Amino acid sequence: MKKMIIASTSTVHSSGYLEYILPSLKVFFTGIDELLFVPYARPSGLTYDEYTNVAKKGFAKINIDVTGIHKFNDPVVAVKNAKAIFVGGGNTFLLVKTLYDNNLMPVIKEVVKNGTPYFGTSAGSNITGITMQTTNDMPIVFPPSFNTLDLIPFNINPHYIDPDPESTHKGETRETRILEYLVCNSIPVLGLREGSWLEVLDDSITLKGKLPARLFRQGEEPLELSPESKLETWIKTDKQ
Amino acid sequence: MKKMIIASTSTVHSSGYLEYILPSLKVFFTGIDELLFVPYARPSGLTYDEYTNVAKKGFAKINIDVTGIHKFNDPVVAVKNAKAIFVGGGNTFLLVKTLYDNNLMPVIKEVVKNGTPYFGTSAGSNITGITMQTTNDMPIVFPPSFNTLDLIPFNINPHYIDPDPESTHKGETRETRILEYLVCNSIPVLGLREGSWLEVLDDSITLKGKLPARLFRQGEEPLELSPESKLETWIKTDKQ
Repeated sequence: MKKMIIASTSTVHSSGYLEYILPSLKVFFTGIDELLFVPYARPSGLTYDEYTNVAKKGFAKINIDVTGIHKFNDPVVAVKNAKAIFVGGGNTFLLVKTLYDNNLMPVIKEVVKNGTPYFGTSAGSNITGITMQTTNDMPIVFPPSFNTLDLIPFNINPHYIDPDPESTHKGETRETRILEYLVCNSIPVLGLREGSWLEVLDDSITLKGKLPARLFRQGEEPLELSPESKLETWIKTDKQ
Repeated sequence: MKKMIIASTSTVHSSGYLEYILPSLKVFFTGIDELLFVPYARPSGLTYDEYTNVAKKGFAKINIDVTGIHKFNDPVVAVKNAKAIFVGGGNTFLLVKTLYDNNLMPVIKEVVKNGTPYFGTSAGSNITGITMQTTNDMPIVFPPSFNTLDLIPFNINPHYIDPDPESTHKGETRETRILEYLVCNSIPVLGLREGSWLEVLDDSITLKGKLPARLFRQGEEPLELSPESKLETWIKTDKQ
């Protein structure tokens, strides 16, 4: 029984770390009093301890204790024994490379498939898809593969942002980048705006939060999905 | 004798393709009446022919004929015989993978070192650096390496854009992304704003255009370099 929360961001504008989503996390983690935090994406070069402390303070508000995976001698065993897992945001390339370096990609996939609750934000959400190829991050390190956890039948673009009609900048918009991805790839992409998240219960995937999400599928017009939409209605998994 | 123009973008706001830089290209390409175009970065999924036609129309204004590298049976021979090379923008991952797939990375490096004039825009500029790791693009394909032409002793961030103080978006700013790169890497990074370019004459690298460029070096405060700055003054190559 898969049980996941896949969030676009840890923090929304003018609100504290995880604040917007804490009520949902409290329900989601009912019965859980500790979780394993994976700080590998290390935003802006924080140490693992510093980043774990950020997560610890956030979860203290709902009485859940947080331990960083770097505190364990064997991270594979730590994942296998975890009551729940939280993978934080930062740089997705760094996260994916470190997960591969520690042989954790297949282990996390296995335990989450078998029921260990999983919470991801930003990079930690990006890796729940089939590949990390719709990350917004810079390739600051070279991972051995772009394949990720494959726990949902599509890819995530976290922090999805609409084109700014006033912009004079010539760099590609987010939509243009995702459409370029779909020139080369057939995996659907969900653009999750900040403040949105997915709740996964086995094969049922529900869009949560106040905003719609933007679904991109090869050869079809992008689609705006309302909150409470079921993703499995829109993604034909037999195609993949 | 290296001779290169490394431009942030092909097009600036409210101006036609290459228009802002054509007067400089005319001088730069004095005596050259044809160039080899590399359309591999294929912005937004254009065909190679479509993209080459865009370049052809741009260069027709300064009486230079353009042929796409895809028209030659052997792209390696095409590069060796080229009077000049223009690598256009699009997706850097796609460009780098296709260059490697065609065994072109070392050949382009060699001919440019030996004097074949090189013009790059955006992705075509990004690859003149030591690695492509400060691209803004999505990893839509998996290249065998992030190492690029290494024709200048630093990396380029094209389309550099300053943080928007009004933004409520929580995705990383460009500066944050580059600083994260420098947590993991010691290669300096030049943020080239749209409308800026570098003129390279052997080991001398001059910033051109009306705007300053932003230089990021590990362990030092970012630096604003004025137009006409010489990059070799600021980059200590013996360190690398």
